Amino acid sequence: MNEEDQEFWSEICQDLIGESQKAVSSLIGSEEGGKIVKMGADGTPTTFIDMVAEKRVIEVLESVDRPLTFVSEEIGELVIGKGPPEVVMVVDPLDGTSNAVKNIPAYGISVAVAPIQDQNVPLTVQDIQLGMVKNYATGDIYSAVKGKGALINGENLKPSSKKDLSQISLGAYVYRMDMGKIEVLCKSVRRMRILGAVALELSYVADGTFDAFVDVRDNLRMVDIAAAKLILEESGGIVTDRYGKALNGKLNVMEKTSLIATCNSIIHGEIMSILEGI
Amino acid sequence: MNEEDQEFWSEICQDLIGESQKAVSSLIGSEEGGKIVKMGADGTPTTFIDMVAEKRVIEVLESVDRPLTFVSEEIGELVIGKGPPEVVMVVDPLDGTSNAVKNIPAYGISVAVAPIQDQNVPLTVQDIQLGMVKNYATGDIYSAVKGKGALINGENLKPSSKKDLSQISLGAYVYRMDMGKIEVLCKSVRRMRILGAVALELSYVADGTFDAFVDVRDNLRMVDIAAAKLILEESGGIVTDRYGKALNGKLNVMEKTSLIATCNSIIHGEIMSILEGI
Repeated sequence: MNEEDQEFWSEICQDLIGESQKAVSSLIGSEEGGKIVKMGADGTPTTFIDMVAEKRVIEVLESVDRPLTFVSEEIGELVIGKGPPEVVMVVDPLDGTSNAVKNIPAYGISVAVAPIQDQNVPLTVQDIQLGMVKNYATGDIYSAVKGKGALINGENLKPSSKKDLSQISLGAYVYRMDMGKIEVLCKSVRRMRILGAVALELSYVADGTFDAFVDVRDNLRMVDIAAAKLILEESGGIVTDRYGKALNGKLNVMEKTSLIATCNSIIHGEIMSILEGI
Repeated sequence: MNEEDQEFWSEICQDLIGESQKAVSSLIGSEEGGKIVKMGADGTPTTFIDMVAEKRVIEVLESVDRPLTFVSEEIGELVIGKGPPEVVMVVDPLDGTSNAVKNIPAYGISVAVAPIQDQNVPLTVQDIQLGMVKNYATGDIYSAVKGKGALINGENLKPSSKKDLSQISLGAYVYRMDMGKIEVLCKSVRRMRILGAVALELSYVADGTFDAFVDVRDNLRMVDIAAAKLILEESGGIVTDRYGKALNGKLNVMEKTSLIATCNSIIHGEIMSILEGI
């Protein structure tokens, strides 16, 4: 992706983020927003606020004068514009839906862009070149371009330099599952948070708010973490699956993964050594 | 406490909440705010932002023309004004300090008032007549007067009517401890959050954002939950310790408790039946 294309798609991302945030704002904390309206393409229920968020994103993308493939939880995959799509745009129109509906201030949007070189080769999360996440409650915008570092509100972003597991703040998924060695991890850290908005939780590792985020269920949608993965990696942090392997899942709504995301390789090693064998 | 006194102390509470929020606002998300400046009266470290919050509360209380005893984590106990104190005012000047320092939008203030009938009898959490909690991030003010119900921003407040444990949103403390049967509870619920701001988390049960909050460590400060306990009970929710007993701890900074707080008695019974024997 050349600089001109980066700029072009980056402006589209900013535009759709602004528009989608406006579209959902009156539904934050409302019962109406939480009503289930249909089943999404990924087989999970779609709430009214999810639908409104996605609808506005699609409207913005339909006004773009270059063809693209849109991938999102509710609609699945949609080719927009004429001719062979230039990019895949992977969007979670509302990260943290259940928080938004209850007015718990931990929700936002995630947008990732991967250029298409060959229409016949399915892209993976490793092809993402541009990622943007907005934390609606704080207004912070996290962004990254592959190979060019990560930013928060246009300023350089870096994770914490913590090296001692007993001092870290951990985001982790620990419910509706067998905890296994996660219990040992929970006992070993300084502090834990569960916010229920994965793109934000990963961005919180990128800016040092958290030191790590762990979800070993193999149930995180690749499209939900696509942008924040790039942001965290470009900030200098580490992202792998629970086996310590690089993520390489395809950019479709059915692709799932586990996640060990950390501020640095030392904390990653410490967490892996606890979890190994799960 | 007669109506006139209720009104008087309620206005003091509102005043100190407004002033303390203003005092900390420039320190939210700042490194300076998180610096440890001393050890508090309860034996835990006091950060700069805690100190600023408490200092402003004390300044407001020093301008009150009726004597009172102020109880707070950092200072311990302080008699303010001349003559025998009329009330004990129990304050957590900053609930969720570590979130405030990191700009995670889950922090606020907790203020509770208990009238003093007899200067020689130490008061307990059951003597609280007035409670107020403000969620700084959302701006919501939760309040309750004993026997008169609970309010959010002046409007009636009630917990959820969920009856099925598998459908609840649970706030729970699950780290730096042996999980025991808490693991079974985590597996049994629909959703979990850890926000790390107990007065807010209890208020979130009172307004139906959460359905329950559980902390079985016997390590929650009575003074931190004094206001939210009344708010949740007055909203119609249930608050006990982990043995299912009513809280009756003294209003001092060393008094600790466990907590099973729920939207109703059915969910309380379900949680107790899982945890019994821990």
